[in-house]
Amino acid sequence: MKIAVFAGDGIGPEVTAQALRVLDELALPGLTLLEGDVGAVAYRRHGHPLPQETLQMACAADAVLFGAVGDFTCDDLPRDLRPEQAILGLRSELGLFANLRPAAGFPGLEHLSSLKPEVARSIDLLVVRELNGDVYFGDKGERVSDGGREGWDSMSYNEAEVSRIAHTAFRAAMGRNKRLTSVDKANVLETSRIWRETIIEVAKDYPEVELDHMYVDNAAMQLVKSPGQFDTIVTGNLFGDILSDQASACVGSIGLLASASLGERQTDYGTFGLYEPIHGSAPDIAGEGKANPVAAALSLAMLLRHSLGREEDAARIERAVEGILADGVFGGDLGGSASTGEIGDAIVRKLV
Amino acid sequence: MKIAVFAGDGIGPEVTAQALRVLDELALPGLTLLEGDVGAVAYRRHGHPLPQETLQMACAADAVLFGAVGDFTCDDLPRDLRPEQAILGLRSELGLFANLRPAAGFPGLEHLSSLKPEVARSIDLLVVRELNGDVYFGDKGERVSDGGREGWDSMSYNEAEVSRIAHTAFRAAMGRNKRLTSVDKANVLETSRIWRETIIEVAKDYPEVELDHMYVDNAAMQLVKSPGQFDTIVTGNLFGDILSDQASACVGSIGLLASASLGERQTDYGTFGLYEPIHGSAPDIAGEGKANPVAAALSLAMLLRHSLGREEDAARIERAVEGILADGVFGGDLGGSASTGEIGDAIVRKLV
Ligand SMILES: CC(C)[C@H](C(=O)O)[C@@H](O)C(=O)O
Ligand SMILES: CC(C)[C@H](C(=O)O)[C@@H](O)C(=O)O
Repeated sequence: MKIAVFAGDGIGPEVTAQALRVLDELALPGLTLLEGDVGAVAYRRHGHPLPQETLQMACAADAVLFGAVGDFTCDDLPRDLRPEQAILGLRSELGLFANLRPAAGFPGLEHLSSLKPEVARSIDLLVVRELNGDVYFGDKGERVSDGGREGWDSMSYNEAEVSRIAHTAFRAAMGRNKRLTSVDKANVLETSRIWRETIIEVAKDYPEVELDHMYVDNAAMQLVKSPGQFDTIVTGNLFGDILSDQASACVGSIGLLASASLGERQTDYGTFGLYEPIHGSAPDIAGEGKANPVAAALSLAMLLRHSLGREEDAARIERAVEGILADGVFGGDLGGSASTGEIGDAIVRKLV
Repeated sequence: MKIAVFAGDGIGPEVTAQALRVLDELALPGLTLLEGDVGAVAYRRHGHPLPQETLQMACAADAVLFGAVGDFTCDDLPRDLRPEQAILGLRSELGLFANLRPAAGFPGLEHLSSLKPEVARSIDLLVVRELNGDVYFGDKGERVSDGGREGWDSMSYNEAEVSRIAHTAFRAAMGRNKRLTSVDKANVLETSRIWRETIIEVAKDYPEVELDHMYVDNAAMQLVKSPGQFDTIVTGNLFGDILSDQASACVGSIGLLASASLGERQTDYGTFGLYEPIHGSAPDIAGEGKANPVAAALSLAMLLRHSLGREEDAARIERAVEGILADGVFGGDLGGSASTGEIGDAIVRKLV
């Protein structure tokens, strides 16, 4: 079993280090770790945010554990050298087409949400976001129009792309409460019309799943008004970017949320994927021991479950995290004072 | 002074009727009302959701008071005959490029929001949404790709388009707390890069306004986490569709929120515009006297202010609405039992 570890920038290395301590404690037999550079640190060392050797390392691994990328020094770089190209490049080069973002409250932490406690408590949803298509990866550029510069981007989805993510979403819904909401803007976009028609087609394979469709503006409204109505949401790359962040904010404690980006490649143990906290690199607090490593630990849990077939180890980490939160081991983001390392210690001690 | 009244479908006619009673009570001298068909009702009567005569009526008027469009009977029509084409067509044909969507809580109604009362109370923002460009009005269609159908849409903004909405937004910010947040996705989209560069250029004309930039995913997060941080938001058509609905949902009482869509044409009294409640046609409760006419009355107030230069009359309506809400005249949407007509009566009685 091989895990590629890309800790990245800002608080990425700190939180990833704690996840690796947890991994170490699990003592998986026959595990190899590969470490690679991504983001601003990779740009400084190799002149590119996603160096060729990093990409090769990912290809050689069964899974990638990712920290975070981005820092202030890169603000003025051209887009193709900026840290976020590392994550966009990994998604496209590795064919990571399915982003799974669970958003569920942690019992006892509802007060962290800006939503009323009873609303926050009701949240238990999964956003399945398509990650390889849409306006993200279409042709784009600058041209002259109306006597000035014009920026343009191409948005599209074809049936094969939608069908692939639809199957992932329906299967995920089957493992949850069997309700799937597909989000699009079919009253305006042709891309969404094909999206919706394909989703309806794929639905025939999953008669047990109750499917509905929502326009993205309404979905953004409903996610605030009554997020508890959602079970599984499937949507395109752009809408998924917005709605998954909104859903995380509803939960209130984004330092605790993890995500998986899965590809088609099957490893000997599961599905190849990349796992990362949903929080960013937070360069303003980097190196101060203030970052919360819980999301990194939970990313590792998702990795063990989906890519290495180690459900038990995944569950052990999740139980440990629940345990320390129940014990009140809170970092600054949760109103406590535990440091990154102390939270890591606590998780390791709770592993049973 | 000429107002074109397009009541439309569902609850549109009911709520518009109450707004017209309020208008009647104001007894403006030299006012002419023109009534036109839009939406599903227009499709049934004339074969098109936006008949030529309706469009001409709008062109001949100083302002349009719009109800709502859409009903179940049109779900299977091709897109270009569906009710929402009426509103999209009016926006483009009339050059209504600036959508102003204020979102602010009504004192005493914070409990209607799913946000904590102190968070809901902090909301007082204005979303300025560009309405004539972006992926809404670019070329679009269906083609073959990867052995199947592909839907595609073109997204773009040029400097002239961005500059125009930027000036509207900066001027609006000047009349508010002089803070403007421009929302884009400049880390991924070329459209957003031109958007951002143009906003920065226009900012030079408004040195008093504090400008910042936010990616749309972060904006969706911040709008839930701490909506009180925003004063004025400016964004493109697609992001504005999503974020303005999200902001309204944060307030909690969407039956109370109105919006203005302004063009470039100056009338003898102000700026030509279209005014509508942000709620939809709600066909499920149409004709039952359950709809809340407050948003329609407040749309009329915006119309009087922006298009007819009647600030005093606008303020009279707004005070009357505040008055009836303070008196507890609530429709079903606010947990009360007042009917559409009773709420209209109450507003009329409160006009002083
Ligand atoms: C960094 C950025 C390009 C990225 C995206 O938009 O996908 C991020 O927001 C995310 O959601 O992982
Ligand atoms: C009906 C629809 C086309 C429209 C839009 O997307 O602009 C609506 O959602 C709105 O915001 O007015």
